[in-house]
Amino acid sequence: MELDKNNQEQGVIDSFQQVRRQTLALTEGLSAEDMVVQSMPDASPLKWHLAHTSWFYEHFILQRFSKNYQCFNTDYQFLFNSYYDAVGPRHARPNRGLLTRPAISDILEYRQHVETHMQQLLALGQPDVTELLTIGLHHEMQHQELMLTDVLHLLSANPLAPAMQQTPPPASLSGSAQPLPALQMLSHDGGLLKVGAAEQGFSYDCEKPRHQYFLQPFKLASRPVTNGEWLQFIDDGGYQNPLLWLSDGWHYSQQYNWQAPLYWQRQQQQWCSFSLRGLQPLNLAAPVCHISYYEADAFARWAGKRLPREQEWEVIAEAQPEALTNANFLEQHIWQPTSCDNQPGFQKLFGDVWEWSQSPYSPYPGFSAAQGELAEYNGKFMANQFVLRGGSCASPRQQLRSSYRNFFHPHQRWQFSGLRLAEDQ
Amino acid sequence: MELDKNNQEQGVIDSFQQVRRQTLALTEGLSAEDMVVQSMPDASPLKWHLAHTSWFYEHFILQRFSKNYQCFNTDYQFLFNSYYDAVGPRHARPNRGLLTRPAISDILEYRQHVETHMQQLLALGQPDVTELLTIGLHHEMQHQELMLTDVLHLLSANPLAPAMQQTPPPASLSGSAQPLPALQMLSHDGGLLKVGAAEQGFSYDCEKPRHQYFLQPFKLASRPVTNGEWLQFIDDGGYQNPLLWLSDGWHYSQQYNWQAPLYWQRQQQQWCSFSLRGLQPLNLAAPVCHISYYEADAFARWAGKRLPREQEWEVIAEAQPEALTNANFLEQHIWQPTSCDNQPGFQKLFGDVWEWSQSPYSPYPGFSAAQGELAEYNGKFMANQFVLRGGSCASPRQQLRSSYRNFFHPHQRWQFSGLRLAEDQ
Amino acid sequence: MELDKNNQEQGVIDSFQQVRRQTLALTEGLSAEDMVVQSMPDASPLKWHLAHTSWFYEHFILQRFSKNYQCFNTDYQFLFNSYYDAVGPRHARPNRGLLTRPAISDILEYRQHVETHMQQLLALGQPDVTELLTIGLHHEMQHQELMLTDVLHLLSANPLAPAMQQTPPPASLSGSAQPLPALQMLSHDGGLLKVGAAEQGFSYDCEKPRHQYFLQPFKLASRPVTNGEWLQFIDDGGYQNPLLWLSDGWHYSQQYNWQAPLYWQRQQQQWCSFSLRGLQPLNLAAPVCHISYYEADAFARWAGKRLPREQEWEVIAEAQPEALTNANFLEQHIWQPTSCDNQPGFQKLFGDVWEWSQSPYSPYPGFSAAQGELAEYNGKFMANQFVLRGGSCASPRQQLRSSYRNFFHPHQRWQFSGLRLAEDQ
Amino acid sequence: MELDKNNQEQGVIDSFQQVRRQTLALTEGLSAEDMVVQSMPDASPLKWHLAHTSWFYEHFILQRFSKNYQCFNTDYQFLFNSYYDAVGPRHARPNRGLLTRPAISDILEYRQHVETHMQQLLALGQPDVTELLTIGLHHEMQHQELMLTDVLHLLSANPLAPAMQQTPPPASLSGSAQPLPALQMLSHDGGLLKVGAAEQGFSYDCEKPRHQYFLQPFKLASRPVTNGEWLQFIDDGGYQNPLLWLSDGWHYSQQYNWQAPLYWQRQQQQWCSFSLRGLQPLNLAAPVCHISYYEADAFARWAGKRLPREQEWEVIAEAQPEALTNANFLEQHIWQPTSCDNQPGFQKLFGDVWEWSQSPYSPYPGFSAAQGELAEYNGKFMANQFVLRGGSCASPRQQLRSSYRNFFHPHQRWQFSGLRLAEDQ
Repeated sequence: MELDKNNQEQGVIDSFQQVRRQTLALTEGLSAEDMVVQSMPDASPLKWHLAHTSWFYEHFILQRFSKNYQCFNTDYQFLFNSYYDAVGPRHARPNRGLLTRPAISDILEYRQHVETHMQQLLALGQPDVTELLTIGLHHEMQHQELMLTDVLHLLSANPLAPAMQQTPPPASLSGSAQPLPALQMLSHDGGLLKVGAAEQGFSYDCEKPRHQYFLQPFKLASRPVTNGEWLQFIDDGGYQNPLLWLSDGWHYSQQYNWQAPLYWQRQQQQWCSFSLRGLQPLNLAAPVCHISYYEADAFARWAGKRLPREQEWEVIAEAQPEALTNANFLEQHIWQPTSCDNQPGFQKLFGDVWEWSQSPYSPYPGFSAAQGELAEYNGKFMANQFVLRGGSCASPRQQLRSSYRNFFHPHQRWQFSGLRLAEDQ
Repeated sequence: MELDKNNQEQGVIDSFQQVRRQTLALTEGLSAEDMVVQSMPDASPLKWHLAHTSWFYEHFILQRFSKNYQCFNTDYQFLFNSYYDAVGPRHARPNRGLLTRPAISDILEYRQHVETHMQQLLALGQPDVTELLTIGLHHEMQHQELMLTDVLHLLSANPLAPAMQQTPPPASLSGSAQPLPALQMLSHDGGLLKVGAAEQGFSYDCEKPRHQYFLQPFKLASRPVTNGEWLQFIDDGGYQNPLLWLSDGWHYSQQYNWQAPLYWQRQQQQWCSFSLRGLQPLNLAAPVCHISYYEADAFARWAGKRLPREQEWEVIAEAQPEALTNANFLEQHIWQPTSCDNQPGFQKLFGDVWEWSQSPYSPYPGFSAAQGELAEYNGKFMANQFVLRGGSCASPRQQLRSSYRNFFHPHQRWQFSGLRLAEDQ
Repeated sequence: MELDKNNQEQGVIDSFQQVRRQTLALTEGLSAEDMVVQSMPDASPLKWHLAHTSWFYEHFILQRFSKNYQCFNTDYQFLFNSYYDAVGPRHARPNRGLLTRPAISDILEYRQHVETHMQQLLALGQPDVTELLTIGLHHEMQHQELMLTDVLHLLSANPLAPAMQQTPPPASLSGSAQPLPALQMLSHDGGLLKVGAAEQGFSYDCEKPRHQYFLQPFKLASRPVTNGEWLQFIDDGGYQNPLLWLSDGWHYSQQYNWQAPLYWQRQQQQWCSFSLRGLQPLNLAAPVCHISYYEADAFARWAGKRLPREQEWEVIAEAQPEALTNANFLEQHIWQPTSCDNQPGFQKLFGDVWEWSQSPYSPYPGFSAAQGELAEYNGKFMANQFVLRGGSCASPRQQLRSSYRNFFHPHQRWQFSGLRLAEDQ
Repeated sequence: MELDKNNQEQGVIDSFQQVRRQTLALTEGLSAEDMVVQSMPDASPLKWHLAHTSWFYEHFILQRFSKNYQCFNTDYQFLFNSYYDAVGPRHARPNRGLLTRPAISDILEYRQHVETHMQQLLALGQPDVTELLTIGLHHEMQHQELMLTDVLHLLSANPLAPAMQQTPPPASLSGSAQPLPALQMLSHDGGLLKVGAAEQGFSYDCEKPRHQYFLQPFKLASRPVTNGEWLQFIDDGGYQNPLLWLSDGWHYSQQYNWQAPLYWQRQQQQWCSFSLRGLQPLNLAAPVCHISYYEADAFARWAGKRLPREQEWEVIAEAQPEALTNANFLEQHIWQPTSCDNQPGFQKLFGDVWEWSQSPYSPYPGFSAAQGELAEYNGKFMANQFVLRGGSCASPRQQLRSSYRNFFHPHQRWQFSGLRLAEDQ
């Protein structure tokens, strides 16, 4: 028994260490300069991510459960609180990039300080702590993905088009010579079904409660829409035809002169896209990526289809647990969507690209926000955002499950976001 | 038979004339100056409404069905198209208030011209025309409500606080001396129910198809939230507490320094609200009005409740057809919400104030947009807006039904919008 | 003596009546709708001008000197104060167009009320009153010009391109068939000269004191730059070459995509310009008009010349008093610049177009602002503006003199502004 | 002779090396993170300054005069051109802070590369090169000052209020216990005088030609306005009284809620100001600093005085050549204004704070811009800016002379800018 308990505590400590190491590993190849700059208000400097993911444990766990814990630096409460009004005032989000001090070395020391104290605390095996730790680890995994999306945005703003990754791209990044088989629309009968996360196992408040939902019969595409298909949309004038677009989307796309997904560039006659490996020729067989909800919706209308409801996606994904394994997640270190192939059945439900659903991010029936300060984690964002499902090439594997709901505003494009088509049956 | 047909045609003509007369009647007490100015991009000048509601028949009916029809003025195609990209380019919405020409007298002549030709056409009894006419009449009724909300906004921007209506307010505008009985939360069992408009009878594409929807058991408040209850929210610091608010809502309310509903003013020690009868003392027993979705949502959280789903509202309202009669609609000429009383059961489901639901404006399962140019009527607005139900004191009675879905952005406040609370059972 | 005094008072009353009549005459052909709308924050509705020019006498004269004077409407103190902080708070300038009430009929009554009381007061012959009246009349003349520039801007924003003036254009609006003779650059020796207004006669505080100023020898062009010459600038890529422009001007012109003077439009192959007579073919022989300082400066650099200093312009103009007579001023009712001709010597120093000088609007040595509330009339605008000289086709003749300093921000174009070239000798 | 020439070349090389060393020395105590971030569009990252001041020699000298010169990196032509349209397109100014690459180490290598080649070229003793070098050195000195003002702005945006300088402040930064003697207004007779730079010796094009200017008699204050005097202005409601302000200034100050000079903070009961030594108690005896033209002008009006004309300042300063020695310039490493004292005569004409003049930055009579690409150096900024005189505690001594004209927009405050009063005699 005692041994088991020790084992369990060691397991918790191992998970903690692994997540922390993985976060740090994402800074490989980056300089202190790369980690301090903020390229837009939506994105944060990597240094800020490194600090905030430590502040989270310090504030929600160490300060409450670790006896006589001394804050590493009390100013950090102000600097690295993200959006928790219940915690107190904080440094304004758009100004995160002005923090040249504390230095990256201070932040690394801060991380070390928090880790030391967390490991001491975790060794005590307190259940309350373990529960909060789990949230903390999932929180940090979310920031791992954001670190990649934010550094990609930063480097994309540099006329030198610098690459973060120096390793050669894997073969899966270039499509096969033969064309992809036609997309298949696979049927589901619908019915009064259960969706949402079960009580056991970790999930966020917004995924609960598991509840009944009535679905009409529908079809879901076997794979995401590819770059090759998106080029047809462009060539058919998709970005010039207001009749394909939502009204808000049309005005936004006109204001910012959208002509292609974010990070696409035309070099002479060829389309390229900017990635963490620098500027690369467009891989026609890979899922299209870095598109807004508005673009996804316009494409679907152009294709005579629609975006899936999040519940449609979830009942399909829940039925294929194997889809989570071998998906193209952050741990693959590819950090770009890879080519689709011509296997039968559903492909790439998980990993590669987040898939925009047509579902606004709303509370499930019976939703109640987490208790205490963490009540702000999800609930306060339930307006003006749409749900994305399935994770991306920048999502840590442990973060994903079929009930996971990601959400962004419909104009945002800097995430690894794509789409999968659906239609009524 | 022949007689019946004539009768039927005469009925159509009568409806047409009645709607047209009602539109014009709304300009009573207003000058040419009052009708040309645009007080904000969301609102339109009354002259523009008068012209646009004529353009609608001219473009969608007369030009297609009336032989040898001569446009009153071909420039009007450009000036008075609202948002139909399929129809062609148009005058920019924020510039509608710059059109001092054509004069109001020209627009009245235009209305007459269209009416004459429409009546000639309607006398022919063509079914296609009748169907389009019905849309045209419902369209015009929507603009009748907007005329009142837009002129209210315009007059509210005048430091003189001028009244449009010179008639004395009815007794129902001042609350009774005794306090209202406590709000009742009335239960419903939920279940797999039908929502949406049936095929027969007029309804917009966005209300269809009628479909099954699974509802958990819930409770709905017997009446809307009143001004008196809203004052408690204010006095309890509701506008200063970010924990009550959606994140987007909090930022918006801070940016524009919201401290009370739109049109409320504190005069010495007393709260007043601006209305079409000018500035009036706040009627504590009347439903709160001119609030945004963000405020409605914050109030519900403060009250320990939530906003209803639109389907919850609909199944309740559909079960009480009598609620539509005797409601406070535009035809009452009160044009303000009236006092709640202490009758048992549901009150004011229709009329008085539109009720914000927690439902984003999304397509129903199986939705397909109307055909042709009218496809843009509703579908392209299905992002970033929330559904409101039940109509207001400015809605024409014929416009409303239990399946009717109104929609606005969550920050908008110039409509007659209020809220009714709900909760899980 | 008594008779003389009566005569003098009658003269004052006559002047007053004449200016007031001239103001009203400018509304001919305009509707109430035309007079209530504000087309941009820089411009004001005509109704506002009509009211403000009455408020000026009421506030600065009647309330101080007319015994037992009853304000027409005390709200007007707030509504029609333009920018006098010393007088008190006031309606915000960009919201002047929201005032659909008071109605134009109220404003005309207000004018009548003020006129009646003013005439009674003027009959008393008080010197203090006469002095303030003179300012009031000059103030009203300034607003006469603004009424024309503001209504021109308003009508230009109407896609129907409506004409205010229905009378046929005089012959002087179309150039002669033969080309203009080359522009002459006429020399002046400079020296230690006197500039500024003398003590006697009316002038604004900013024109005083008359003072010595040392001028290097210079040359001034015999006539303003014409539309024909401006076309050469356009055709030579003047709007595309940053090296010709001031830095602030280049950024401004790029942001607003300037390609030609304000009100120019290309219709098929021909350049037209919008005027109070509607859209007209460009008159190549007339002075270019509706250009900003930035454009004037860029043109001068392109031409290898420069803009004149205001003192250079003044010493030339002062030496030719006959230039004021027969100039194209407001009273001509042409309200557009007319063709240059090939007379020798200086042409069009006065009237037609205001001429941008290179002189920032700064206080003269020894400047002291007028006393009391009128101290704000000129002095507080002495930053970020440039001086223009000579008056325009919309300036009342009585308003002009060689020392008169008009001033606008360098990006503003809706005044009748052109340029005359200068160079060092 | 040959020896002399060698000596002369060595002198040029020495000057070059000294300026370059001084630039680098300004980065002491700063990290790579401190040098990459841009805190506002007006300011540039220090890394950018380090690169741009090298690009200047590379582009204007090495590429033209150094045979077979290989650019260090051709991308730098785009990245580090500041505003020379004649040179070609360039990285947008507000995005300078996005350049995390090239790394600071690359930029230091770039500096070394340019220095090596420059020294080889300078050893050849070509007069054309020496002339351009002189401009390059003066250009680099201007950027030395900007480096200090820009890093001060950056650090001021950090809630930690970090100090760049760790050395203790000299005694001159704290005022003496006894109050300052009253400010003296010293007289000058004016007359027809010469101003502007002589032909011999280095000066910018905008300081020339030396020319006659007629000045009325005037008085100039013996010393700049102090922090103590500014406190009186604040306490007297100076920031709340629109009658003291220029119209543009009042609106700007209201929009940004100015209540004190930039960098002032109230800590409990005491005013402090942020400096490169961190937050410090306000030194009442030191010249007020970091004020806009609008504030300087309002203060002067409050004080019953005015700002000096730039010519007034110049004739005074030219008459006291000793004022340049022992002034508080960058080389003192104090980098803050020091206390005034009670010596008779003029104090602090040079150094400590730039003094706003009332003179808009305009071309002198006979001005002609420098030839070629350097024509853009000064001339294109001659609108909307005001002249400042005398240099500051962040100005390199070699940069200053009595004819030197600095210029900024009237709202800008991040320079070391103060004021000295003047009045008519």
